[in-house]
Order: sequence, then C-alpha cells, then structure tokens
Amino acid sequence: MQSIVLNLDGDVSEFDLRDRGLAYGDGLFETILIHQAQPIWWDAHWQRLLIGAQRLHLPAPNQIKIRKACEALMANQDRAVLKIMYTRGSGGRGYAVPEEVVPRILLSAHPAPKPIPNGIHARWCTTRLAIQPALAGIKHLNRLEQVLARSEWNSSDIHEGVMCDTDGRVICATSANIFIRRQGQWLTPTLDRCGITGVTRAWVLENSPHSLEAHLSCEDVMHAEAVFLCNAVHGIMPVLALDERIWAAHPDILALQYALAQAQPAFVLGEIRGT
Amino acid sequence: MQSIVLNLDGDVSEFDLRDRGLAYGDGLFETILIHQAQPIWWDAHWQRLLIGAQRLHLPAPNQIKIRKACEALMANQDRAVLKIMYTRGSGGRGYAVPEEVVPRILLSAHPAPKPIPNGIHARWCTTRLAIQPALAGIKHLNRLEQVLARSEWNSSDIHEGVMCDTDGRVICATSANIFIRRQGQWLTPTLDRCGITGVTRAWVLENSPHSLEAHLSCEDVMHAEAVFLCNAVHGIMPVLALDERIWAAHPDILALQYALAQAQPAFVLGEIRGT
Repeated sequence: MQSIVLNLDGDVSEFDLRDRGLAYGDGLFETILIHQAQPIWWDAHWQRLLIGAQRLHLPAPNQIKIRKACEALMANQDRAVLKIMYTRGSGGRGYAVPEEVVPRILLSAHPAPKPIPNGIHARWCTTRLAIQPALAGIKHLNRLEQVLARSEWNSSDIHEGVMCDTDGRVICATSANIFIRRQGQWLTPTLDRCGITGVTRAWVLENSPHSLEAHLSCEDVMHAEAVFLCNAVHGIMPVLALDERIWAAHPDILALQYALAQAQPAFVLGEIRGT
Repeated sequence: MQSIVLNLDGDVSEFDLRDRGLAYGDGLFETILIHQAQPIWWDAHWQRLLIGAQRLHLPAPNQIKIRKACEALMANQDRAVLKIMYTRGSGGRGYAVPEEVVPRILLSAHPAPKPIPNGIHARWCTTRLAIQPALAGIKHLNRLEQVLARSEWNSSDIHEGVMCDTDGRVICATSANIFIRRQGQWLTPTLDRCGITGVTRAWVLENSPHSLEAHLSCEDVMHAEAVFLCNAVHGIMPVLALDERIWAAHPDILALQYALAQAQPAFVLGEIRGT
C-alpha cells in the first residue's frame, strides 16, 4: 500500500500514535474510485467530506492542494481505489480537543476490487445499526458496527449483508446503499438516524425520475420487484438473492446501469470493460 | 509521550497506517492509573479487555508479557496514566477481516491529571448515546459520541458532562460512571444498551452494601440526595453542581472515598496525598 500523510494545507506531514483518529475514531474517510488516474466523482466526495468536517467541528482542508496530492499518488493507476482519511490529529489523553491540535490527511492507494459478476448474493445481518442522528449520514471513522456485521459470514459466495437499525428499519448494506423497486418507483432508506449518504445513492436520487427516500421494512425489501446495491467503487449492483428470496435480472436496473455508465464512463459495465 | 507497539506475544512490533484501529476504530483500550510504578487494578482492567476482545472476536493477548512491557514502560513513574490500545492490526481496505491479520498492542505513558479539588462541577450534555447492545459495556475505540459531548463546553470551570441515551435514560459522564443516592441506596445506570462498565463502578457495586444497577432518569439525578462520578484515574469524585442543582458534601460519599483509599492506597484523597 502506498500512502502519504499531509497537513490540511497539503504539505507532507507525519503520523504519530497520539492521533485521535486512532484513539477515538475521531475523523472521517472517503473511498474514491480511480479510473485512468483520475478520481471519479471528486466533487461529490469532497462535498461529503466537508459536511462531515462541519458536523465534527473540523476545519475545511485545502481542496486544490489535497487533490493534487491525490492525483500524484494515483498517477500511474489505471483502475484503483484511493482512500482519504481526515483525522483531528494528535492530542493528549482524554476526549477534550486540545487547542493546539493539528488535523491530518492520510492518503492511501489500494487495488481496485474485482467487479462483481452479474449481481449480488446477499444475506440479512443480525448486527443492527444504532440510531444516532448526530453522526447519521457522514462517513466517520467509528465503524465497529460494520466490522461486526461483516464478520457474520465468511463464505465468498455471499457478497454483502443488509442491515437494519435497532428499530427494525432497513438502512443499507455493510458497504453499500440499497434501493428497492415498488410500483414503478425506486425507494431508498431515509438516512437521518444512521447510515451513510453514498455518492452513488445521491446520483440515483438525482438522475432517476421516480426515486425517493422512504422508511423501509424487511418485508418491503423481500416483496420488492427488484433490489440493487450501490457504492462509489462498484456503481450499481443488482441483487440476485437475499437469503431465500431470488430476483431475476430487472430491465430497470440495467437501464440505470447504462445511464450511469453514460454519465460516468468509469462505471461502464464489467462485461463491456472486458473484466 | 513515551509509547511502544507490541504483538500479542509482547514482542516489539510496528504500527502502520493500514491498522484497522485507525481505519474503523476496530479495537479496544484501557486507561490505567500508575502509582509508584505499579498499574492499579490491573486484573480488573485486563478482565475487561478480555471481555471486549471476546465481543469483538479478537484473540486474548499474552497477559504476563504485556504486563511486563507495561511495567517496563512505567518503571520511573511515581504517578501517571498508562493507556493500552488493542487493535485488530493491519488489513486491506474493507470491513472484512483478512485471515492473515496480526493484532497489535500499543502502550503509551501519559502524565497523571491534576486531582479535582473538592468535587465536580458538571453539566448535562445534549449529545445522546446511541443504543447498541452489541457494543455496550466494553471500552472500544469508537468514541465519537464522547468527543462530541466533550466539545459542548470549553470552560475549565466545568469538569464533566452527564449523558443520556437516545431514549432519555441517564447513562454516564463523558469519561466517568455515575452513582446517585436515593433512600439510603447508591444507584448506577444499567449498561446493557450503551456506556462502559468502569472498574471503579464495579468496585463500588461490590463493596458498597446498598448499591445496585437501575434505570435512571434526569429527574432521578436532579432529585438525588447525593451524586458522585467515578473512574479508574480519579477514583470517586463527589458532584457539587449539575447545571443549577447544588449538592452539599455528603458523608456517605466521604465514607466511600475512605473505604476506597483503604482498599487501594493509590486512591488516597488528594488533600492527604498533599496535592
């Protein structure tokens, strides 16, 4: 893994073990698809990082300098994943943020995951998401719920797990958002109490005329005409199976995938990309 | 800050930026008072670390070797704080735990905080604790709620903030447990849905004949005859004020403080210790 540590001005800096990202998960991250050495949907990722920073009372980093550093790190990558971590920086022991704290940006390059052929085989997770409006929507570094949920299976035949909150509402998959088809509409869970507002989710909500946020139950998902997951690395992924429930390929998902590939060629379908 | 990185056998190791403690808060910590170079209540801290490890599916570290390393790190410290972090170690990108992951222990030495003279001036926090039974009780590294709660004030006249869960039950202070006096009993919140089961809290529950766990509301706290906070660094701390509510020093708190100092001389009262 290639990685680099920067300050908020984009100058090279160093990590140290007093970092509050490590001590408390006091920070944010973004996971960005790199295609032909370019960060895909940079603006949307950066915007979400800024919203997260505001929610955690972190200052805005220098976008131009950080983006330059990202592009330099990923310069030779045809297809890869860039991870940006933004931590509050090093402080003493204790939750109070010291005045002299200097936040950090950590950039790292990762191999692109294999495309998921055809679609997703998923299961329901028993781990629930806690309801915490103060942290809902943002991509912060407190991710033990996702770690526990993802540890519920280790078969490579299962790609994802779908999660409910502690009230039983469906929220997301461990590392993707979810949409279900019902009566000609695409519905995705409201994320004002938990979950992460994904950039691909936002693209679908903006670009699919009959899509909206709603409260969804497990029954809503199981009775849906079609289901897909989405994230910024894989784009739109049809769900073929969720525990015992099987779905046939749905033309409206294919239509959305084509629309996405047209809007953003990095998301051209695996078969077309020759993978 | 002096610090050292070990593997679970207690051998010297290295930190790297792929550590899942940093990426996801995937790990645990303990904050241990050092008095005359000795870790105070080691057994209780270690036991909680093991329970946390079990809950997060982490293996048990070598206690004898890790304790030796702690004592070596703290050998010249008359009074200080030892922090143990236990992370799952480095893994690839993504929530799934790779098979080859090697967990890490990070030890760091910190100055002992100043004793709190007389007692605590506290306030109610508006940040709520999410209800998450899967993580309740253990001292894991996902602590953004405490960071947000502690950021609600910066006056040094306020020592602590008292937190409720999202259902409005009182749970704890940002870095201490809470007990209230009612009709001759010491009551402390049940922690099966959120909060951390503190080692000093456990000592009080075991050693005070009329102490028990209960569901407590804000009104219960405000109507209490007496209130104290406790943690493993400061021991038992009387609460003198909580927002507008004022309490006089209560003889039963003093009695508990003396009992604690008798059981564990490291917790001898500040005045007696001459600080």
